[in-house]
Amino acid sequence: MSTSVIILAAGKGTRMRSNLPKVLQPLAGRPLLGHVIETAKKLNAANIITIYGHGGSLVQEAFTQEHIQWVEQAEQLGTGHAVKVTLPVLPKEGLSLILSGDVPCITQQTLQKLLDASQSSGIGLVTLTVADATGYGRIVRENGKIQAIVEHKDASEEQRKIKEFNTGIYAVSNAKLHEWLPRLNNNNAQGEYYLTDIVAMAIADGLEVASVEPELAFEVEGVNDRVQLAALEREFQIFQAKQLMQQGIHLIDPSRFDLRGNLTAGKDVRIDINVIIEGDCELGDNVEIGAGCVIKNTKIASGTKVQPYSVFDSAVVGEYAQIGPFARLRPGAELANDVHIGNFVEVKNTKIGLGSKANHFTYLGDAEVGAGSNIGAGTITCNYDGANKFKTIIGDAAFIGSNSSLVAPVTIGNGATVGAGSTITRNVADNCLAVERSKQFAKENYQRPQKIKK
Amino acid sequence: MSTSVIILAAGKGTRMRSNLPKVLQPLAGRPLLGHVIETAKKLNAANIITIYGHGGSLVQEAFTQEHIQWVEQAEQLGTGHAVKVTLPVLPKEGLSLILSGDVPCITQQTLQKLLDASQSSGIGLVTLTVADATGYGRIVRENGKIQAIVEHKDASEEQRKIKEFNTGIYAVSNAKLHEWLPRLNNNNAQGEYYLTDIVAMAIADGLEVASVEPELAFEVEGVNDRVQLAALEREFQIFQAKQLMQQGIHLIDPSRFDLRGNLTAGKDVRIDINVIIEGDCELGDNVEIGAGCVIKNTKIASGTKVQPYSVFDSAVVGEYAQIGPFARLRPGAELANDVHIGNFVEVKNTKIGLGSKANHFTYLGDAEVGAGSNIGAGTITCNYDGANKFKTIIGDAAFIGSNSSLVAPVTIGNGATVGAGSTITRNVADNCLAVERSKQFAKENYQRPQKIKK
Amino acid sequence: MSTSVIILAAGKGTRMRSNLPKVLQPLAGRPLLGHVIETAKKLNAANIITIYGHGGSLVQEAFTQEHIQWVEQAEQLGTGHAVKVTLPVLPKEGLSLILSGDVPCITQQTLQKLLDASQSSGIGLVTLTVADATGYGRIVRENGKIQAIVEHKDASEEQRKIKEFNTGIYAVSNAKLHEWLPRLNNNNAQGEYYLTDIVAMAIADGLEVASVEPELAFEVEGVNDRVQLAALEREFQIFQAKQLMQQGIHLIDPSRFDLRGNLTAGKDVRIDINVIIEGDCELGDNVEIGAGCVIKNTKIASGTKVQPYSVFDSAVVGEYAQIGPFARLRPGAELANDVHIGNFVEVKNTKIGLGSKANHFTYLGDAEVGAGSNIGAGTITCNYDGANKFKTIIGDAAFIGSNSSLVAPVTIGNGATVGAGSTITRNVADNCLAVERSKQFAKENYQRPQKIKK
Repeated sequence: MSTSVIILAAGKGTRMRSNLPKVLQPLAGRPLLGHVIETAKKLNAANIITIYGHGGSLVQEAFTQEHIQWVEQAEQLGTGHAVKVTLPVLPKEGLSLILSGDVPCITQQTLQKLLDASQSSGIGLVTLTVADATGYGRIVRENGKIQAIVEHKDASEEQRKIKEFNTGIYAVSNAKLHEWLPRLNNNNAQGEYYLTDIVAMAIADGLEVASVEPELAFEVEGVNDRVQLAALEREFQIFQAKQLMQQGIHLIDPSRFDLRGNLTAGKDVRIDINVIIEGDCELGDNVEIGAGCVIKNTKIASGTKVQPYSVFDSAVVGEYAQIGPFARLRPGAELANDVHIGNFVEVKNTKIGLGSKANHFTYLGDAEVGAGSNIGAGTITCNYDGANKFKTIIGDAAFIGSNSSLVAPVTIGNGATVGAGSTITRNVADNCLAVERSKQFAKENYQRPQKIKK
Repeated sequence: MSTSVIILAAGKGTRMRSNLPKVLQPLAGRPLLGHVIETAKKLNAANIITIYGHGGSLVQEAFTQEHIQWVEQAEQLGTGHAVKVTLPVLPKEGLSLILSGDVPCITQQTLQKLLDASQSSGIGLVTLTVADATGYGRIVRENGKIQAIVEHKDASEEQRKIKEFNTGIYAVSNAKLHEWLPRLNNNNAQGEYYLTDIVAMAIADGLEVASVEPELAFEVEGVNDRVQLAALEREFQIFQAKQLMQQGIHLIDPSRFDLRGNLTAGKDVRIDINVIIEGDCELGDNVEIGAGCVIKNTKIASGTKVQPYSVFDSAVVGEYAQIGPFARLRPGAELANDVHIGNFVEVKNTKIGLGSKANHFTYLGDAEVGAGSNIGAGTITCNYDGANKFKTIIGDAAFIGSNSSLVAPVTIGNGATVGAGSTITRNVADNCLAVERSKQFAKENYQRPQKIKK
Repeated sequence: MSTSVIILAAGKGTRMRSNLPKVLQPLAGRPLLGHVIETAKKLNAANIITIYGHGGSLVQEAFTQEHIQWVEQAEQLGTGHAVKVTLPVLPKEGLSLILSGDVPCITQQTLQKLLDASQSSGIGLVTLTVADATGYGRIVRENGKIQAIVEHKDASEEQRKIKEFNTGIYAVSNAKLHEWLPRLNNNNAQGEYYLTDIVAMAIADGLEVASVEPELAFEVEGVNDRVQLAALEREFQIFQAKQLMQQGIHLIDPSRFDLRGNLTAGKDVRIDINVIIEGDCELGDNVEIGAGCVIKNTKIASGTKVQPYSVFDSAVVGEYAQIGPFARLRPGAELANDVHIGNFVEVKNTKIGLGSKANHFTYLGDAEVGAGSNIGAGTITCNYDGANKFKTIIGDAAFIGSNSSLVAPVTIGNGATVGAGSTITRNVADNCLAVERSKQFAKENYQRPQKIKK
């Protein structure tokens, strides 16, 4: 039976004090709603129906890549009303999961358990048992079976002691949704249509309402303000960090590790404090990432050591490379095995061959460097003439003296040498020495400038 | 009725193991005593009377900017004695708040409540109710009214179960202080004059002692050693972080955020992990501060993105600028809108015009850069001749080639171009190309230096 | 009576998911087993006998510097078997401490207490009392005396309520070990030889089994997976941080401080957030270390301030120096008093004299700089010719202009001046000005390159 996913994402989130709709607030670098959509996709949902309202176009634009059926809830008349507006596009058969766009951490596992549990009766919900459920709708059971959900304000003294509450995440048969939702009414103090009322309808129909509990409480936590968002971010980060540690990654301090995307790692990878991993990253066996590195969409092969405070974006690094500290790899940096990139070195859109080194203060942009070359401190590829960008080609086993300026387009041949301090504007042939320099001039007993009196 | 504030700041703080008097130890970048003085000022105190003792001159020097009446307590004979030495300068009328220089987090709100509560009877104190008050002076009440304060060592088994204790923060009418303090005696085991005894005097006089509790327990925490100082620093930082999040700032991790001063921020400001804000800073709407940045006394306008590990001090940044990573803005850096400052770039005492860029390895010191100019990688303003500092002026739409040295005083005109690797010592006219370079020399089949055998 | 230490270090640690034997996993930068060996050495153990198994040669290689008797346990037949294999090398007299290579934080103090307590009866163990000892072997006592250790699975309902458990750390007389260990059998479900059984033998022999509890629970925590390793790392770091704070170091955030080695510090040292100290470091009075610095095997004298994100390895820094931010001191950097090293400056194998300054973008490698010299921004010592490294000597009161390249071997004399942008290949005499530069060429109305249409 096919699964639909209905996501409530129409809330404004006033308490966030933001111009961004609440469901677009990022958690671990991804919008809250994006987490829910990602989970829906893992469940192979046949349809993902998202109800938008406040900031609707912004919300839709953020997910143009996804196959989502957008349904507008023009007026915010309650959760029941929100789901009701999906009826025109909702299939007549199958089960629907009803999720909230601001409850981002619900896991595939919990939802699969909910779907499984709800197949026979056609209705189930996720509940959570806590020490004190004050404020929440309590799950009233008799002989284990759910009898009712009683809102806190309507609960008796006895019912308020119940520790199990409704998290607002449901699985319901589409047939029943088509039957029940039109029967919802708003005869209550708030004048809203409550989705919870379908549970009473199910019980009245003699159905047994299924329930499952999440493995971890944070799965059902919602986000209403920045304090909650920050707290949930930490719980999610710790959850991710634990998973990585169980896979064998050595995190020096899991509470100072941020993963905003996906990390695939080999054996004996060590990640020091305050590292941020963004996008999709891959680290080979024995890779070491020093303190404070920021690594985005980057692939690093086995045995490479990255020293502290290196910042990588969209780079590829070979095996046994040595990089940093304070190295910057920008998009298109491709480093072969055994490359050394030292402190205060920036590499952009440049391939560097086996074992080549650029150990200090160097900018390699739009370049190709062969194998076994040494790029001296202070070397700069002048890749931009103010209007166009050009390439610098450096061969194998070349030696570029310190403080050189290589004015692109220019080619330095294999085995070529550039003298320190040279500005190289013409190609240098293989095994050739190129120098741009004047005669060193000396003036004896030079009178150094004196402090000007003002 | 006017309020006086009396601050006890004579303690040595032996357990800090420091040469600095305890009240000068910094919390969130400000001396402990400074926090108390700041709060006193917010209450519009008519007089701030501070009792100093150990390290007195150091303490006074730290607050020469403040209007404080300093009173010396030459011998440390107890809290009662400390307040007694203020009598010669204490007004005869009005209420006094009696605060401790090592209890820095007491809030204006709590003190205002205390003042309000103490107006009628002329005496009130701040108490705190905790799970276990072992060690503290218990508040003994009958029918809700304070009957006595009983020190832990003097308390009965029954009294030791009392969870409410005296924090040592008082509001007392000055008339009563003039009456009671001379009557204090030191007939006790320690031979000290205890301020607490005035509560007994008040009760003996038939006065009803008022009391208020602080909203948060950390308000009344004192600092006696480095462990307590560090713990209170964290509580204060989390308190500040929560306030900022409630105002709408997105802190990625409030437990890795340090504010040592004041931060004013617009909407949808995002601050990544481990950022330190010092002094007075202002961030416009949508400003993003990357991980690990240290921002001091700086103003950044809307839409600007700062990448990780940028360090700013006394800078002004326009809108939609792009800065970092590893950028350093030093005092006097003034960046117009849309300026780009890239990695390993240092800017000091320099104005940079609309949309100009210095993307890599550049030192701009004592300079003025116009609009739309491009400063190549490795450019250095040679602003110092060993004795004097001079200015470098760069016009609009100039293009400075990489690795250039601009020897100040020098002016590069509008639309001018400087060739890569040039040392520019003479002014460059508008739209002029200036190059300082020799002919590139080539030697074929150059024999590279060989490893010298030792 | 002499003390032997027996360390069980044969376990594989499958749950670490590592190619490294478990006892070689690092905690605070030192292998787990290294911590235990270090503690054994502090106890002046006459013999340190270590039982290895999995990854044996790797384990031995990691401690070739230590005087350790290695005994192989070829098959893993239980803790009793492990200790039994040491009998051929175990002295006949004295007491042995039996420790685990994966319980790294046990302190000298606790072990000394255990030795003292175990002298008379010849057997004692470390126990711990916790709220819930589920899973552990309970200590059954009668009139305070240990009657038995009952494993969790064998314990009665009543015994399971016991909160005191056996940590597996013992002190036993060697004579008894020689008597008891051969009598162990493996008649149990797992078919293993349990060391615990010697406790039953001792009791059967009428001996009173001594016991001590550690001051802090983390002393007896073992490491079985990465999650436990990370948790213990934090407990150990906080423990170290507290000790440093009690000695008077001002740690701005003890939960963001990592000490991986030993730190000796004077008075009023201030260490900001996220600093890492590695190896052996010494900080003089009033030293300040800025946020995010990584300091390894470095000695910094009194009054020196280090700004954020500076990375030092094997350097020596004098008094009142000013360093950073983004400074890198590499091995052999020796800075005299009052030296200034600014942003993006790298110093390697270089001595810098009193009060000299290199404030921006400079690489000083294999150099000697005298006193009072100024090294301009962008200066690079070209110490490597592609095959050999040579020295650069700069005298006192020299002035090196910006963007200079000093091609070693080269000497710049006292009071000498190098013009900005010069490549210096020949020695510069005292008080001499040296310049390498061409005439500045100007082309008016220069037509800047245009965007090439593609």
